[in-house]
Amino acid sequence: MKAFDFSVPTRVFFGSGELKRLKEISPGMGKKAMLLAAKQTMKQTGILDRAADLLRQGGVEVVVSDDVDPNPKDVDIDRQAAAFLKQKCDFTVGLGGGSSMDSAKAVAFLAAQGGGTILDYLAGGPRASLQDTTPAFPIVCVTTTAGTGSETTPWWVITNTKHHEKPGTGNDSTMARVAIVDPELMVSLPREVTRNTGIDVLFHAMEAFIANVATPFTDLFSREAIRLVVENLGTAMDNGKDLEARSRLAWANTMAGIAIGEGKSSTVGIHALGHSIGGQTDAPHGLTMAAVGPAYMEKTWDADITRYAEVTRLLGQAKPGMSAEELARRSPEALISTLQRFGCRVSMRDLGVNESMIEAMTDSAFKTMSGCLNCSLKSLDRADVVAMYRKSL
Amino acid sequence: MKAFDFSVPTRVFFGSGELKRLKEISPGMGKKAMLLAAKQTMKQTGILDRAADLLRQGGVEVVVSDDVDPNPKDVDIDRQAAAFLKQKCDFTVGLGGGSSMDSAKAVAFLAAQGGGTILDYLAGGPRASLQDTTPAFPIVCVTTTAGTGSETTPWWVITNTKHHEKPGTGNDSTMARVAIVDPELMVSLPREVTRNTGIDVLFHAMEAFIANVATPFTDLFSREAIRLVVENLGTAMDNGKDLEARSRLAWANTMAGIAIGEGKSSTVGIHALGHSIGGQTDAPHGLTMAAVGPAYMEKTWDADITRYAEVTRLLGQAKPGMSAEELARRSPEALISTLQRFGCRVSMRDLGVNESMIEAMTDSAFKTMSGCLNCSLKSLDRADVVAMYRKSL
Repeated sequence: MKAFDFSVPTRVFFGSGELKRLKEISPGMGKKAMLLAAKQTMKQTGILDRAADLLRQGGVEVVVSDDVDPNPKDVDIDRQAAAFLKQKCDFTVGLGGGSSMDSAKAVAFLAAQGGGTILDYLAGGPRASLQDTTPAFPIVCVTTTAGTGSETTPWWVITNTKHHEKPGTGNDSTMARVAIVDPELMVSLPREVTRNTGIDVLFHAMEAFIANVATPFTDLFSREAIRLVVENLGTAMDNGKDLEARSRLAWANTMAGIAIGEGKSSTVGIHALGHSIGGQTDAPHGLTMAAVGPAYMEKTWDADITRYAEVTRLLGQAKPGMSAEELARRSPEALISTLQRFGCRVSMRDLGVNESMIEAMTDSAFKTMSGCLNCSLKSLDRADVVAMYRKSL
Repeated sequence: MKAFDFSVPTRVFFGSGELKRLKEISPGMGKKAMLLAAKQTMKQTGILDRAADLLRQGGVEVVVSDDVDPNPKDVDIDRQAAAFLKQKCDFTVGLGGGSSMDSAKAVAFLAAQGGGTILDYLAGGPRASLQDTTPAFPIVCVTTTAGTGSETTPWWVITNTKHHEKPGTGNDSTMARVAIVDPELMVSLPREVTRNTGIDVLFHAMEAFIANVATPFTDLFSREAIRLVVENLGTAMDNGKDLEARSRLAWANTMAGIAIGEGKSSTVGIHALGHSIGGQTDAPHGLTMAAVGPAYMEKTWDADITRYAEVTRLLGQAKPGMSAEELARRSPEALISTLQRFGCRVSMRDLGVNESMIEAMTDSAFKTMSGCLNCSLKSLDRADVVAMYRKSL
């Protein structure tokens, strides 16, 4: 066995009704929270008011920032961090999907640097390494989707409006101190959001499993997460009120987050290519991976026969008597069948990409997501990325 | 899904040669370490000197306490904690099996209370709840056996010489900050130690899986740990130098530790009964569970047919066509076969217990290990415990 290391520093509360834990957050966090959420969804469903009430019942003063954008932008973070400092908040609470949780992380981080612009800390910025930065203020994540796994990763993704990029970054200090995963909050998610976020979970888990940094620790989580998405996403899409299916998807999401967030673990080239589509088009994050995933599997399946064969098995697409090599070779097709089953076999054109964007997207993949690219089991150069993009048009 | 919570606050470094991480320990821990180990084993193998050297290379001053007993006693801890305070140490490093790591935890805890006697904090003592105690000094665990899983649990077990008990206790502050699991340190373990500690791992994992506090998180670890012990213990016993088998056993041990150490997870009645044998006889810890395990399984197998059936499967003892109930009913026999296979199907008499000790052992199980007892899937009263002990004589 190769050497590896891990921890799960976040205290995760999982279960229906666990939103109530917000009442117990105060000790060790502080007395004044900035609660970040998207007005449109969280206010309408009443979840935002409930969360704010629970925090107040726990003795926490709450500053609500309900202007989180579905793909949060640098200018949003800069404004919210300035407000955090002006209001003398002690910690952030991100309530929602990846956008709210990532905003909570970015605001807690930027505020700890004394404000300014988050652009300085994103790929290409002068302090993009995050070295010698001050640790972020404490962060609480409450996830209301089974989607980004942001509640158990250090990563946050902010759109760079200047360069049309969607870089991911983060360090130990941007792991949530406390994460709350309450499947009850997910029963009202529309079918399409359930699908798009569920597909993101599938890619996190599958990519973690075929990353060159996968470990016996991350494998425990990624295997089980793939299995649970395949088994439960259809049910959750067809009957959003099925709390058991919602719970299993939510658990898959949290596990997939751990699989890409612990130690040196990571996603691979699929996320690198997907993010760069997101920077150009504002397409739903999960669908960008659906567009490029099959081409990536075709390019890489022979890099590790055993692992790619297991992907085919975990996707439930193994046929009796197939050799490991046949199973591995079948993995792109297994992924395509899975995407078709959930109605999201999409092309890049479906997402608004045209051929003229491929050069810029390739630049962006290398500039902003080379970390993930380099975790692929096959080394990928510029020509490889262009070819995968073309194949996915 | 029922609600549950978890974290893995310990940073675990796993792999051959990872002992070297001791050079990086200093930041956040302090400048002076008390290094606790058993002279007989650690000094002879040269591991103690290597560990001390690595700490010194990292800028840490080292106070060596190489007088750890195989079953550490209250009087040892009291003396070592006094030395820790006198020498103004900042943290402890436990190097060895459960005895050294548990000593490191107990010393770090007792020293934080300003010294005195650890008896005050053990079951029956005036501060046994550990409430309102000061958090322990930082702890580093380096495990040289695939045994107690102490490196990833908050628990420490100290023999109460006054009452001949072996109570376990611990709180959040007695989780190791850093754990090092280096299978290379295990290749020289004698066959018998390999077996007795490996059997302990099997019981941790199996008990965690059939505990009423098992969660989807602990199940990930306990299932994989059972599987790995069954597959690798024989090889590690027969060829101690097989580093791959040693690594897999070591990983099983660390996972089993997580399965009994996270959230509200726990072992069950088997450990409660086993510990009380250990208090009376100084028998190797793993063997005490081997003696009482089968009687426990016979008593409880029908409490959860699905889980006990899976135990039989995980032990590799399922026969084709068996119903879940047949599999569950077979679990005591599956455990017995497994123990026989590893040459440790022992009775309590083999361990030096006679019938006259059963009453005192039963008292001790309820007094010192009721937490574990109450995690059993069947509620167990005094008569049940006496009956299981008699059956195991």
